[in-house]
Amino acid sequence: MRKIILDCDPGHDDAVAILLAAGNPDIELLGLTTVGGNHTIDKVTRNAQQVLTVAGLRDVPVYRGATRPLLNSVITAEDIHGDSGMEIHGFDLPEPTVEVEEAGAVQWIVDTLMREEPGTVTLVPTGPLTNIALAARLEPRIVSRVKEVVLMGGAYGAGNYTPSAEFNIAVDPEAAAIVFGEAWRVVMVGLDLTHQALATPEVEARFAALGTSAGDFVVGLIDAFRRNYKDAQGFDNPPVHDPCAVAYVIDPSVAETVAVPVSVELAGTLTRGRTVADLRAFGADAPAVTAAESACHTSVATRLDVDRFWDLVVDAVQRLG
Amino acid sequence: MRKIILDCDPGHDDAVAILLAAGNPDIELLGLTTVGGNHTIDKVTRNAQQVLTVAGLRDVPVYRGATRPLLNSVITAEDIHGDSGMEIHGFDLPEPTVEVEEAGAVQWIVDTLMREEPGTVTLVPTGPLTNIALAARLEPRIVSRVKEVVLMGGAYGAGNYTPSAEFNIAVDPEAAAIVFGEAWRVVMVGLDLTHQALATPEVEARFAALGTSAGDFVVGLIDAFRRNYKDAQGFDNPPVHDPCAVAYVIDPSVAETVAVPVSVELAGTLTRGRTVADLRAFGADAPAVTAAESACHTSVATRLDVDRFWDLVVDAVQRLG
Amino acid sequence: MRKIILDCDPGHDDAVAILLAAGNPDIELLGLTTVGGNHTIDKVTRNAQQVLTVAGLRDVPVYRGATRPLLNSVITAEDIHGDSGMEIHGFDLPEPTVEVEEAGAVQWIVDTLMREEPGTVTLVPTGPLTNIALAARLEPRIVSRVKEVVLMGGAYGAGNYTPSAEFNIAVDPEAAAIVFGEAWRVVMVGLDLTHQALATPEVEARFAALGTSAGDFVVGLIDAFRRNYKDAQGFDNPPVHDPCAVAYVIDPSVAETVAVPVSVELAGTLTRGRTVADLRAFGADAPAVTAAESACHTSVATRLDVDRFWDLVVDAVQRLG
Amino acid sequence: MRKIILDCDPGHDDAVAILLAAGNPDIELLGLTTVGGNHTIDKVTRNAQQVLTVAGLRDVPVYRGATRPLLNSVITAEDIHGDSGMEIHGFDLPEPTVEVEEAGAVQWIVDTLMREEPGTVTLVPTGPLTNIALAARLEPRIVSRVKEVVLMGGAYGAGNYTPSAEFNIAVDPEAAAIVFGEAWRVVMVGLDLTHQALATPEVEARFAALGTSAGDFVVGLIDAFRRNYKDAQGFDNPPVHDPCAVAYVIDPSVAETVAVPVSVELAGTLTRGRTVADLRAFGADAPAVTAAESACHTSVATRLDVDRFWDLVVDAVQRLG
Repeated sequence: MRKIILDCDPGHDDAVAILLAAGNPDIELLGLTTVGGNHTIDKVTRNAQQVLTVAGLRDVPVYRGATRPLLNSVITAEDIHGDSGMEIHGFDLPEPTVEVEEAGAVQWIVDTLMREEPGTVTLVPTGPLTNIALAARLEPRIVSRVKEVVLMGGAYGAGNYTPSAEFNIAVDPEAAAIVFGEAWRVVMVGLDLTHQALATPEVEARFAALGTSAGDFVVGLIDAFRRNYKDAQGFDNPPVHDPCAVAYVIDPSVAETVAVPVSVELAGTLTRGRTVADLRAFGADAPAVTAAESACHTSVATRLDVDRFWDLVVDAVQRLG
Repeated sequence: MRKIILDCDPGHDDAVAILLAAGNPDIELLGLTTVGGNHTIDKVTRNAQQVLTVAGLRDVPVYRGATRPLLNSVITAEDIHGDSGMEIHGFDLPEPTVEVEEAGAVQWIVDTLMREEPGTVTLVPTGPLTNIALAARLEPRIVSRVKEVVLMGGAYGAGNYTPSAEFNIAVDPEAAAIVFGEAWRVVMVGLDLTHQALATPEVEARFAALGTSAGDFVVGLIDAFRRNYKDAQGFDNPPVHDPCAVAYVIDPSVAETVAVPVSVELAGTLTRGRTVADLRAFGADAPAVTAAESACHTSVATRLDVDRFWDLVVDAVQRLG
Repeated sequence: MRKIILDCDPGHDDAVAILLAAGNPDIELLGLTTVGGNHTIDKVTRNAQQVLTVAGLRDVPVYRGATRPLLNSVITAEDIHGDSGMEIHGFDLPEPTVEVEEAGAVQWIVDTLMREEPGTVTLVPTGPLTNIALAARLEPRIVSRVKEVVLMGGAYGAGNYTPSAEFNIAVDPEAAAIVFGEAWRVVMVGLDLTHQALATPEVEARFAALGTSAGDFVVGLIDAFRRNYKDAQGFDNPPVHDPCAVAYVIDPSVAETVAVPVSVELAGTLTRGRTVADLRAFGADAPAVTAAESACHTSVATRLDVDRFWDLVVDAVQRLG
Repeated sequence: MRKIILDCDPGHDDAVAILLAAGNPDIELLGLTTVGGNHTIDKVTRNAQQVLTVAGLRDVPVYRGATRPLLNSVITAEDIHGDSGMEIHGFDLPEPTVEVEEAGAVQWIVDTLMREEPGTVTLVPTGPLTNIALAARLEPRIVSRVKEVVLMGGAYGAGNYTPSAEFNIAVDPEAAAIVFGEAWRVVMVGLDLTHQALATPEVEARFAALGTSAGDFVVGLIDAFRRNYKDAQGFDNPPVHDPCAVAYVIDPSVAETVAVPVSVELAGTLTRGRTVADLRAFGADAPAVTAAESACHTSVATRLDVDRFWDLVVDAVQRLG
């Protein structure tokens, strides 16, 4: 069992990530923390409650996190996620029956990491990194206690929010710089990988065939995501980013990675929020490169085992019933 | 009585600020919070304990704060404050008999502000603004509950750490940007003012004449500060920055201020950490300017009533006995 | 006789600078070069021709220079200089009878400096530094042949175009960085000085009393400048910037200067175009500071001998008849 | 016949570019202009003279250009090009018998473009873009007279000088920003393409088989380049960048291109000098994308027809004898 804290901003693909984490038998989901990103903290927190309600997950606590980025103004993604942050047509989202905990997300992350056995908890952020950065600054001792940080965000190739930057990093570049700069192991599951996780009609049919409420919910999410991604970015099939990070925690063989230094550009006029990966020696076999790679605490995901990925997601959703 | 939280990094002049806050009868010092700045968090926290011990202040709680700036690496000021961060010759600092509280500084600031009556607590940061920025991001509701933030830091004229930037802001520019950017009232007591608070031999003689332990301590602080400031920056008499902010809280008439917009430069190659004040209409009497000034939530201190300032400090130290 | 090249963007105060340079008996005005700044290159070149025509100056050649800044888009100052770039009411500007030379300004500057005796020609830029920067890059050997560069631009205190930056530097910061960065001696006659050169009613009366065409022209310039500066920046009497640089060439005692390093901020979000002067040791008498000052190739003007300045201008205008 | 000006900094691969341009029957090489880059202007100019001497090219005029970048300090690439900037072992470079012209490169570029029929001359820069940028600022009318600018430089993927930036752009980012920002058509032949132009042993054998002086020269260049690129960047076979740009001018079908906006980052701490290409709609078939592409004046080269490329180079070298 791998213990994770899923720090998210649902969001259609965050919803799928929650279902994957909750349904997979190898994951122990300690809690959901929310963060302003795809929409405001109020909306994404409500969406998190609704996802848990739909899936009948009563035992996953929800903690409300950062209202806004460290320095940037609030940025949201209505073009992709609609007015509610998780707009769906043809599927009725219930009133949440899951409560939000009293404690704040950042304090709960700190307390959990200080309480759990060191090296046992993986942080899985799938939104802006504000909560994680605040936790690291509030209590620096958490850094050595975390097993690893597997985050959805960034890109070493083209961005999506700007030509250079991916949305989650662009929303809070300073938080990202803090997270990539700390000494913990960071796996960047970026657009380079997640643009391979396309929800084709064939994939969608597998969820429809489940004939379950959770399956129908995923179909609704994909339908909405397809429409929005087509309009906003010209994709025929939408990339379902966030569950890729969860899938990597479940089974690292689902994604190839390469260890390269990654830093976040804060000052650029055109490149603010870019995750600058040093790929110059990418693929080189020289001993010096291999040694450097083994000392590097950051890595980037490059190639997805697409079939294995969707098998994991379908299986988890099926288990939720 | 004005309730304050003194957020400091002692530091010779922070020590004087603590004595002023503790000895002045109009100030209720809710607690000291420490922050890495003039030296590491370990040293400045120990120094805070020692100041309280010297002055016999058993009832002022001490909370340990941020270890490092949000983005910058740790920067300290040994050239001004020596190896211990508060080096004194000819005065024996005692072992601290004051404890550090269990709670962290940031959480305590948040809890205190959420507990106290809104509009009653003034924050007085005299070091880098890391703690205050983290508190504002951890709990945004504190912003409207604070009476005002009276901070020592910044400069609209020349800097000291760089040609453009004052030390406290240069150490953590992102934290400063957060603090100046929030909607609370901010009074910047910067170098423009504090370079008028020079500890001349005449001033020093007043403390010596008190014949008290606290008076002798101040003499030791000024002696050390004089030597260091002469060597490092060519000052004949050292500027005693931090008590200026406390003095302004006690009696705003001690410093003239002007309401102008202030922002912090984060991206400049030469100017990172500069507090950019818009002084273009400074002194203009046009109605538009006056209206703009009254709407402006930031102001900068310009001229010190030097005699009144030292009277306040001498009086407070005398009361401590 | 001091040989100068006046590189300008007339502009009301550039016009006064031209008259001062042409009328003063100690200046040999080799030529006027124009540069886009206060208005477009077409308009400022025509204005230069008109100033020469009004003053009956047939022997000063005019060379047309840069159309636009190195990197910035074109920025002009209609609020201060009006639609024509030198708008005057109540004084009829004649059709120019002075031609523009065939050669471009940059090439002519290079050719002139390579032809004249080294160390004899002073460059006096009173607009954006585009022409001068291009000349230095086109022919690096000119740098050691120039006597000095006495420029109107920059500020070590408050800016005017932005809180941090003066107009001439803000228009083309990269050109300014090139000019301040070259090894020639640079005297920055910035807002700190030129805001002391206020055209009061008493000053204006002196020009009116001349009873000459050139005198009436100056009165017209000041009238227009007074109105525009009042509306745009709240000045009661307008600062007549550009002739200050010429006056300094005529008689350096007209302005106090201090040798300090000056660099131009290119990257700042708030401070782009700021002339960053290191004033930290300003006024200090330590031997190290004095030695550093003498090795420093840049200096900034600080205090104007206001009476001497206006005497020089009135005298020159009188001589033009 | 396509008229070109080859603006270069030889450099091993510049040497091959010169041979390709001179030997190919469809190119009229109007002249070589040199620019500081791979090594100082003195060394690259001498190298250009030597290349022409080796190849017996007496009629190609050489013009010496910019000594240094617009803003950056001089940066050279001894690790790749050796102490001379074109170090070769086992091939004796002759004393140059070709002279350098009197006129400077920038002025000659301007004069040539103003003299030749508009739309007939292609600029082919294979070094830093300093000369081209200066020419565009010195005489803006050249922009509409140039047929197109086909430059070797930049990368939309990984850089080589830094993780983000290719050498030619990194050396003079401001010049590159000027060139990409002007309204002429720009084809960026960057590392994305040139890293496909690898000089394998099979390729090298084709030059050896020519049995000519020029062929032996190319073999010497490749030998040296192989050794240096292996040591410096881990390449088994060296990428021969610069002739790719010339080959594209000869036959655009040798490289696939896509029209996307390209801008140069000037301000980034990590990304300064990056050519930011907006690839977000890369490959999308939406009508809006297609329309945007057709209006875009910049394009990037993506895929090289490797066989066709080497055929062109071998053929040209063979013709030189």
